[in-house]
Amino acid sequence: MNHEQFSSKLLERAVGEMAKLPGVGRRTALRLVMHLLGQPATATAALTDSLNRLRTEVKYCRVCHNISDTDLCEICSNPSRDARTICVVENIRSVMAIENTGQYRGLYHVLGGVISPMDGVGPGDLQIASLLERVADGEVDEVILALNPTMEGDTTGFYIQRRLSGQSVKMTTLARGLSVGDDLEYADEMTLGRSLVARTPLT
Amino acid sequence: MNHEQFSSKLLERAVGEMAKLPGVGRRTALRLVMHLLGQPATATAALTDSLNRLRTEVKYCRVCHNISDTDLCEICSNPSRDARTICVVENIRSVMAIENTGQYRGLYHVLGGVISPMDGVGPGDLQIASLLERVADGEVDEVILALNPTMEGDTTGFYIQRRLSGQSVKMTTLARGLSVGDDLEYADEMTLGRSLVARTPLT
Repeated sequence: MNHEQFSSKLLERAVGEMAKLPGVGRRTALRLVMHLLGQPATATAALTDSLNRLRTEVKYCRVCHNISDTDLCEICSNPSRDARTICVVENIRSVMAIENTGQYRGLYHVLGGVISPMDGVGPGDLQIASLLERVADGEVDEVILALNPTMEGDTTGFYIQRRLSGQSVKMTTLARGLSVGDDLEYADEMTLGRSLVARTPLT
Repeated sequence: MNHEQFSSKLLERAVGEMAKLPGVGRRTALRLVMHLLGQPATATAALTDSLNRLRTEVKYCRVCHNISDTDLCEICSNPSRDARTICVVENIRSVMAIENTGQYRGLYHVLGGVISPMDGVGPGDLQIASLLERVADGEVDEVILALNPTMEGDTTGFYIQRRLSGQSVKMTTLARGLSVGDDLEYADEMTLGRSLVARTPLT
C-alpha cells in the first residue's frame, strides 16, 4: 500500500497531508480520511476549524511561555501559586504532566525545547534569556530543573545551571531512581546505579 | 492524562476534535496537535484545506460508486478494462487492495458497506439495487463476490447471490485457504478446515 494509485486526486492529497503527521502512515491516513468521509460534513468542518483557529490564534504566556488563550497564562496570573519557585520544563506536555500530579504549587518556565546540536538547536533558540531575567529580578528562591532525563535534557540542565551559578538562587532537579512499583531485576543498570549512588537516608 | 486541564481552550478543542478520529486517543491527539503548532502555519492550512475540499467536493462514480473526481471513475471509463466482469466489494479500500495485486482487469461495484442488523445496516442502505440493474442490463458475464471473510460479508454475499439467482450470470467468490507463506501449525482451524474441504487438484 505504498504508492498505489488513488482513484481521486482529492483523496490522494488528503491522505498525503494526513500522512505527514508523525506516526501516521499512509494506511492509517487513509483509514482516518475514509472515516471523515463516512461522517456528516460538519465533523470534518469542526476538526479543520479547531485546528485552523488553534494554529492562527494561539498565544504563549509572556512570562512562562506556556500555551495560553491570554497574554498572561492562568498559572502565572493565579495569586495562590507560589511565585518564588520556578519549574523549568522542556514543553507544555511536561507542564501538564506535573500539573496532573497535584504536587506542585509554583510557577513554570517553558524552554520550548532542549539544546540539541544534532538538530541545530542552540541555547539562543530556547527561552533561556527570559529565564535568566526572571531570576535576576530577585523574586525567585528556587529553580527546579524538570527536564526529560535524556542526553539533551541533561546538557540543557548543565547549561542553565552554569548560567545561573552567580545568582543566589537554590537550584534543584527532579529525583532519579526506581519508578514506583519497579522490580530491581528489570530496572536498567543506569537507573539502578544512580538510585544506589543517590540513596536516601531512612529517617 | 484523561481529563487534565489544558491551559488553552483552543488547544482543548483541537485535541478534543482530533481525538474523535478512530484509534486516536487524547495523548496521541495532543502529540499531533503539538506537532502542527511546531510547524509553519502553512502546514496546518494545507492539511485542513485538503480535508475540507475532499469532504465537500468528492464524487462517487455513478456506475460503480467508487470514489472519483469525475462523474464516471477512471476504471469505469477505461476502454481497456473488461466490462463483462464485475467485482463486488465492500468499500474503496477493497478496490485499492485488488488493484494493487495487478491481477484484475474487470470493473468494480462498491456496496458502501455490508449487511449488519446489529449496526442497523440493511440491504436498502447498500448499493445493491444498482448492482442488480447493471446485471439485468445483460452485458455482464461474471459477478465476483470479493467481500471480507466475516459474518457480515458472508451474509451480504448470500443475499446478493439469492437476488441474482434468476439471472444467467456466472457467480464466483474469492478462494479461501492458507495464506501464501502460512505454516499449517499456526493457521486457525476454520481456515485449515476450509482449505482441506476446498482442496485443489494438482494438474
